[in-house]
Amino acid sequence: MELVPVGWVESPLTDAAAAPKQGDEGAPPAWLVFDGAYADALGDLEAGVELLVLTWLDRADRSVLRVRPRGDASRPLTGVFSTRSPDRPNPIGLHRVRVLAVDGLRVRVADLEALDGTPVLDVKPVLEPRGER
Amino acid sequence: MELVPVGWVESPLTDAAAAPKQGDEGAPPAWLVFDGAYADALGDLEAGVELLVLTWLDRADRSVLRVRPRGDASRPLTGVFSTRSPDRPNPIGLHRVRVLAVDGLRVRVADLEALDGTPVLDVKPVLEPRGER
Repeated sequence: MELVPVGWVESPLTDAAAAPKQGDEGAPPAWLVFDGAYADALGDLEAGVELLVLTWLDRADRSVLRVRPRGDASRPLTGVFSTRSPDRPNPIGLHRVRVLAVDGLRVRVADLEALDGTPVLDVKPVLEPRGER
Repeated sequence: MELVPVGWVESPLTDAAAAPKQGDEGAPPAWLVFDGAYADALGDLEAGVELLVLTWLDRADRSVLRVRPRGDASRPLTGVFSTRSPDRPNPIGLHRVRVLAVDGLRVRVADLEALDGTPVLDVKPVLEPRGER
């Protein structure tokens, strides 16, 4: 179960501590920059659509099983499967974004809360009548 | 970027060709059976909550970049990032399910469209005000 990066995030967000905690709190637009080997896979993306972007949160701590939500010391330790903490056994980030523009292998998206350099694993449409197995 | 299975799917679905194409078309209930090493991570799951389950679609073809949606030969070839095809470079399945019951390391869920034996990678709450980085 070895992942391959299909692209990377280009974002002004470079510091985990300073990053907003969710997209609608003001994450900036970012670029998804794809490896040319995957050009055919992204050939039908277009401005205006909503996407789910899956990323590899490469700065996460994979040994963490319980966290205090939002880093709030007054809250109880909670199993990570009941939180969106990036620290978890398989640190896959799931981000809902809107496509602003497509320029060849570069896709501009709004509200992506992911740090600069984060590997992109997959992109899926938000809505499709069928197809998930 | 090496994934570890945190558990496995136990489901009556054993044949990809016969599986429904999305949960609300009638996927049966299934069990998520977790490895004991992750007991602390799932300690706060409870019946009634909605979860996103991430799986590794281990029978997928990772070389596929374009597909005919729904396997319909009359439809044009479409980049896999615009479809929910399981065949894609990183075949991570994303399933929205409802928890029916929790029994130790076994979690019963409704409407999981995943084949028996599919590795489970992660579980996330559907709704949380903050926390995704």
